[in-house]
Amino acid sequence: MSDLSKLCIHSITTKPWGVEEAARKYAAAGVAAMSVWQDAVASSGMSHQAAGNRIRGEGVDVACYVRGGFFTALEGIARQKAIDENKRIVDEAAAIGAPLVVLVCGATPGQSLFESRKQITDGIAATIDHAAAAGVKLGIEPLHPMYADSRSAVNSMNQANAICDEVGHSNLGITVDVFHTWWDERLESEIAVAGAKGRLFSFHICDWKNLPEDMLNDRGLMGEGVIDVAGIRQWVRNAGFDGYEEVEIFSNIYWAMDQDEYLAKIKEAYLALG
Amino acid sequence: MSDLSKLCIHSITTKPWGVEEAARKYAAAGVAAMSVWQDAVASSGMSHQAAGNRIRGEGVDVACYVRGGFFTALEGIARQKAIDENKRIVDEAAAIGAPLVVLVCGATPGQSLFESRKQITDGIAATIDHAAAAGVKLGIEPLHPMYADSRSAVNSMNQANAICDEVGHSNLGITVDVFHTWWDERLESEIAVAGAKGRLFSFHICDWKNLPEDMLNDRGLMGEGVIDVAGIRQWVRNAGFDGYEEVEIFSNIYWAMDQDEYLAKIKEAYLALG
Repeated sequence: MSDLSKLCIHSITTKPWGVEEAARKYAAAGVAAMSVWQDAVASSGMSHQAAGNRIRGEGVDVACYVRGGFFTALEGIARQKAIDENKRIVDEAAAIGAPLVVLVCGATPGQSLFESRKQITDGIAATIDHAAAAGVKLGIEPLHPMYADSRSAVNSMNQANAICDEVGHSNLGITVDVFHTWWDERLESEIAVAGAKGRLFSFHICDWKNLPEDMLNDRGLMGEGVIDVAGIRQWVRNAGFDGYEEVEIFSNIYWAMDQDEYLAKIKEAYLALG
Repeated sequence: MSDLSKLCIHSITTKPWGVEEAARKYAAAGVAAMSVWQDAVASSGMSHQAAGNRIRGEGVDVACYVRGGFFTALEGIARQKAIDENKRIVDEAAAIGAPLVVLVCGATPGQSLFESRKQITDGIAATIDHAAAAGVKLGIEPLHPMYADSRSAVNSMNQANAICDEVGHSNLGITVDVFHTWWDERLESEIAVAGAKGRLFSFHICDWKNLPEDMLNDRGLMGEGVIDVAGIRQWVRNAGFDGYEEVEIFSNIYWAMDQDEYLAKIKEAYLALG
């Protein structure tokens, strides 16, 4: 099959391209949507509204705005600042026309992950009404436990589901990324829970290479590693998700190659999922 | 306090020292025990029995032999080979006089973690009687999920407890390493389960540095990172564990420094735990 109608690519995946060039290239390749990173907009020189219009003008949908979060801190004043910052990010998402902000929730060395998750819950609760008023959803993205030191205290789907339960707002849901969650024995069941509660908001794909060289920037293309990406995608679909399948890859190797060739490889790897 | 009676150090922690030099230095520093890695014995030129006698001759106990495992493979013949290899490792442990072999259980790209855990369970079940006959225990060491690609499909205490339940042998238990398990919200309760079932066999300490530079060889000394080592030690003690507290650190940084100075830092960091 050659259906690209669900294929979305994160601007950071093809980082050497600016947001305008990425929009043109994605459009020419038949890619349906782009998830837009803050830095890509900042370096474009365009306003968020102009950037969104420009991307859509190429026929490419804006799937998500990446990223908010980082709600944890030892000091209350820093946590309040994070909430203000997240409201600003929500406004940027609304301006660019993104229906969703992905949240990398934060963690703070020196306090327990339990305390950090409590602060995350409080921070999201203090932001969600602002998001709803702006017509923007928030997606908690559980990160791999190797990022629990300072990037995110939310490291599994069940923790994300628990926070969603506690906040209890229809604009709050979850972003499932295969890279962060593939190892979790509870993944299928927690995806089903999230689907049943209408909170599967977005789905990120890539692969975990065997013995990565780098904890951050050595992700693989789908099929290049150990994750059963098609299998997890089926779990997400079984749970009712029918949104974009977003290719988000941080890779020094791929950023260094010709980005046109890379885009062709992304399409090929995506289509090979079947 | 300055009680070193529970302090054990893994030979790999001070890798630049051979096993004989390590034994002398540990003894002079008042370190109670050594956990001995296979490569340290091999490079000593001594038999396992001679190495064990030499270490004990310095007044240093042999706590564990490291390491067995790697039970998974796509082919049955390779899995049988792994069982034979583990029996040989058990014999080496008996010869060196170690009461315990630590198991890094293995994982195989191309098969699911569920299948790998089944193979691990089968492999341990096929090895445990041999171990018992040799007077050696086996300790499943859950590894961090970032090692689930090819090092271990056992990534949490609850998975280790489940395998112990299934095999059901008093010579099979668990090695808890703070580096691998600190992120797990179920850690305290699963430690309690393991303690109640008499299967907390050994306890490894180090620290997770904030933003490690390397997935394998950038571990920190206790107190240098984000893990509440004293807190986890208290959970282990609450569960009835009163064995050695084993410092196991893979670190390019520490291997490069003067090992006498490093040993002094290890003692200092250990005593600072209180």
